[in-house]
Amino acid sequence: MTRSFTFIGGDKRQREALSLMADMGYDIKVFGLALRGIRGQVKEYASLCPELFESDVLVLPIPYRDKEGYIDMDMAGLELEKVDLEDLFHYVKPPTIIILGRADQDFMALAKEKSIEYYDLLKEESFSILNAIPTAEGAIQIAMENSPITLHGSKALVLGYGRIGKSLSRMLKGIGAHVSVGARKDQDLAWLRERGFEPIHINSLGKVLASQNFIFNTIPYLILDKKALKKVNKDALIIDLASYPGGTDFEAAKDLGIRARLDLSLPGKVAPQTAGKIILDTMLKLVKA
Amino acid sequence: MTRSFTFIGGDKRQREALSLMADMGYDIKVFGLALRGIRGQVKEYASLCPELFESDVLVLPIPYRDKEGYIDMDMAGLELEKVDLEDLFHYVKPPTIIILGRADQDFMALAKEKSIEYYDLLKEESFSILNAIPTAEGAIQIAMENSPITLHGSKALVLGYGRIGKSLSRMLKGIGAHVSVGARKDQDLAWLRERGFEPIHINSLGKVLASQNFIFNTIPYLILDKKALKKVNKDALIIDLASYPGGTDFEAAKDLGIRARLDLSLPGKVAPQTAGKIILDTMLKLVKA
Amino acid sequence: MTRSFTFIGGDKRQREALSLMADMGYDIKVFGLALRGIRGQVKEYASLCPELFESDVLVLPIPYRDKEGYIDMDMAGLELEKVDLEDLFHYVKPPTIIILGRADQDFMALAKEKSIEYYDLLKEESFSILNAIPTAEGAIQIAMENSPITLHGSKALVLGYGRIGKSLSRMLKGIGAHVSVGARKDQDLAWLRERGFEPIHINSLGKVLASQNFIFNTIPYLILDKKALKKVNKDALIIDLASYPGGTDFEAAKDLGIRARLDLSLPGKVAPQTAGKIILDTMLKLVKA
Amino acid sequence: MTRSFTFIGGDKRQREALSLMADMGYDIKVFGLALRGIRGQVKEYASLCPELFESDVLVLPIPYRDKEGYIDMDMAGLELEKVDLEDLFHYVKPPTIIILGRADQDFMALAKEKSIEYYDLLKEESFSILNAIPTAEGAIQIAMENSPITLHGSKALVLGYGRIGKSLSRMLKGIGAHVSVGARKDQDLAWLRERGFEPIHINSLGKVLASQNFIFNTIPYLILDKKALKKVNKDALIIDLASYPGGTDFEAAKDLGIRARLDLSLPGKVAPQTAGKIILDTMLKLVKA
Repeated sequence: MTRSFTFIGGDKRQREALSLMADMGYDIKVFGLALRGIRGQVKEYASLCPELFESDVLVLPIPYRDKEGYIDMDMAGLELEKVDLEDLFHYVKPPTIIILGRADQDFMALAKEKSIEYYDLLKEESFSILNAIPTAEGAIQIAMENSPITLHGSKALVLGYGRIGKSLSRMLKGIGAHVSVGARKDQDLAWLRERGFEPIHINSLGKVLASQNFIFNTIPYLILDKKALKKVNKDALIIDLASYPGGTDFEAAKDLGIRARLDLSLPGKVAPQTAGKIILDTMLKLVKA
Repeated sequence: MTRSFTFIGGDKRQREALSLMADMGYDIKVFGLALRGIRGQVKEYASLCPELFESDVLVLPIPYRDKEGYIDMDMAGLELEKVDLEDLFHYVKPPTIIILGRADQDFMALAKEKSIEYYDLLKEESFSILNAIPTAEGAIQIAMENSPITLHGSKALVLGYGRIGKSLSRMLKGIGAHVSVGARKDQDLAWLRERGFEPIHINSLGKVLASQNFIFNTIPYLILDKKALKKVNKDALIIDLASYPGGTDFEAAKDLGIRARLDLSLPGKVAPQTAGKIILDTMLKLVKA
Repeated sequence: MTRSFTFIGGDKRQREALSLMADMGYDIKVFGLALRGIRGQVKEYASLCPELFESDVLVLPIPYRDKEGYIDMDMAGLELEKVDLEDLFHYVKPPTIIILGRADQDFMALAKEKSIEYYDLLKEESFSILNAIPTAEGAIQIAMENSPITLHGSKALVLGYGRIGKSLSRMLKGIGAHVSVGARKDQDLAWLRERGFEPIHINSLGKVLASQNFIFNTIPYLILDKKALKKVNKDALIIDLASYPGGTDFEAAKDLGIRARLDLSLPGKVAPQTAGKIILDTMLKLVKA
Repeated sequence: MTRSFTFIGGDKRQREALSLMADMGYDIKVFGLALRGIRGQVKEYASLCPELFESDVLVLPIPYRDKEGYIDMDMAGLELEKVDLEDLFHYVKPPTIIILGRADQDFMALAKEKSIEYYDLLKEESFSILNAIPTAEGAIQIAMENSPITLHGSKALVLGYGRIGKSLSRMLKGIGAHVSVGARKDQDLAWLRERGFEPIHINSLGKVLASQNFIFNTIPYLILDKKALKKVNKDALIIDLASYPGGTDFEAAKDLGIRARLDLSLPGKVAPQTAGKIILDTMLKLVKA
């Protein structure tokens, strides 16, 4: 039975997961993640050492690397040496299982070489679905904060009907907005009809842009280009949720006087506790702890 | 531009599609489908002949064959010779496009041989999604007709979260039932959580069977076997929507005194006009008419 | 504590309430209501006698009188003498409490004379609200059974936004219909806007009648008169739920070839068990049993 | 026909109403409300004068008086003399109609004396219903901003099922919270059951307080007293929306370490444009302009 976990690096979400696990009685070791008053069976380390790698499961950040390529650590108040992939794999050995986000070629090569089993949370469909919930709520919060009108009774357009598009359109309708959803696939358009949304084929977006109060984009390519933006109402608010650099020509939006913003990584920002709980649930399910 | 259609065989749904197309001004020829007062540009034939095959599109039934293997014709009041696949392919030639349901090996071989383009509606995802709507409504109608309690406030279990499961669970909740949904895939369970249904892993069905007033099955294998049925409340009603022979041990249900019924092909039965409209919409989209 | 109940007359609903109460361990006496296999502490009588009136509560039908003015009894299989109000009040005495439907002048005079406390269920707001649920579901069942199209995607108009109008419009929307509601009061129109329905002022009905597939009336005066009916689509289905004689000019509808039907007393017809449960819940709450 | 309006005092909401009316072509005069770029037929005055009172309708703030008893003016950037009721009634004469909020004894006496017709918006049921929408959305925004968890999946308790309680509980459920509503009246509890909320009798609140993540109060008396607060989870967030001083013992909450806040006048704060539109709609309806 899986009982012991080591956390290396992370942010508010990992801290939340760790805190819940400590309450549940798991044995936990940690390096590179400030604890801030978490109690229970948690042992903190000031440097990498063999003991840290004796746990059944090693939990890395999501994504696991920072911009410089090191393990993404929460250094607030901690004076620690930076750690890279080589450092980690110097210590780790089977049957330890690694849980992380965004496993890249470097990681996969080393894991293969040392026969380490791992799970990439960002490849877990159910993890992504559950994360769409705080993302959608975050988008709604941002829309409320940045608009002099209510979502109720407004016209809201959601671009894309993937995970975030599905959750967001459902919530917007639940509040009372008139929701149109732009999609390309026949089957998405059919589901939109079944669920009572106004289905808009992506090729026909032009017809509906002018009447929208809110436009939420989840499509990861330049969908709101200059030509499209010219049709958008000047009072509309564009909230782009598609991964960097988003699907909006922000430069053009600025020139046209349309408010447009790119909002990324919302779960950790607006609901770190829920986000941590989702990591925890997915992790325990994967390692059957 | 696609302007002319020939219907050979069919049922109420094809008649409805044909009627709407006649109103829209398409040129229509028909054989083996009683017209019953449809007006417009419709020319009826009493036997197969070359003229029937001059249309741009040839529309066959869904599924296209009856139990004996002939084209499934609506013979009510008509005295026509039966028609088989060979008869059809004797006449049909490119660039005629065939629209049908359940293209089998025989059909595909002949189509290939004569280079005939065709679309199998039952393989069109959007067609199946839209058909889930009248299926779900039909199931609800049957539940209402066969129960002394309201769906509102009742406990309803939907087995399977495919197209019908999705539409049915949404409608049941919309009426006011307490809806649990049994599924196996992590991602389905995650979506159920997102949408506010009680997600039940198929392996844990045993725990919830006893408390259900209605059980709707859409899983096409023996899920409600004798062991499961023993846990079901005697007053519950089981409505099985999975394709023949369903997913219920009907014999065992009878022995246990539990009402269980297999309800197939609901769209044509409960809402032929909607079902015909779905055929029409899908067909026109496929042939870009 | 209230422990003993006597039922005199009634229908399927009282039988259901009685059956549930027997299961709960109450002492029950009954006259004029066929038991059909109900078990528990139930004592049946073949004629009125003092013992019947020793219970804490006397339960009469809803409404309590039949067309001829007698207590409305379920005579199926029973050979009983008819009972009138005088007969009852010959026996009943304080502190017995009477529960009934539609207390009229005759009843109230006698109750006052003999100082009998009573509750008229039809005057209990919460009873009427809960009964709107099976009425609404019944209306939906009837609509489904009598139409070749699905409610989903259809245009449905609900006339009146009282109890039945509220429940019915919510359910229709939950299934997926496009629901407009006709009301007169400003506050009803405001609530309709809040809840996402299309609010139609009763004076502007004319504009929307032509496009409706289903019209449900709950307004108890002639709202669908000849002039209004002339605007209704010939394929529409009118289901009138307003108390007799309804709010539709049925004669005119027939002349115009529009299907219109008056459907009354739906709870007992489509969901007697739920209707019985509602009587039970309300009754126990009123007498604090 | 009512064509001319004079605004004296007000806030963002009146400015929004005024702006919309200017676009619609009404003749508008204004005193004590900074215009900030509104265009159209608007004439601004620096002091009270007879001309201001020649309009068909005189629009005062909601509520019309500030804390010191003067007409509540938006003095930002304006150097104006304060105006009191006597000043106004010195000028106003029939058939001018006054629209205002919270007409008090002083106002009513003067209006009667001078035979002035007036409408108190806060007494208009439909105005209050529509204002519940931005209030509910504001409460949701505040809940999202002040919590590390999502509303989706959380347990939320709404105290009171009046206008705000109805709108708020509907929206919370629409987002995906598990919503209980505390009410006292049988009919409210029946409606809650009909609408799929968990109905809690106010006397039984004690049982559910401990499990709630969010508590929204709309009941204008001390419902969340010290005794009740002791049962509340320390991590819960209390948002009190009942008019000043709210229904929470804030002192006790502070002592117990529970976050509790009183949030008043939300429409003007979170959605001034929607709030202005509601004033406009109600006003035009009242004076039939």
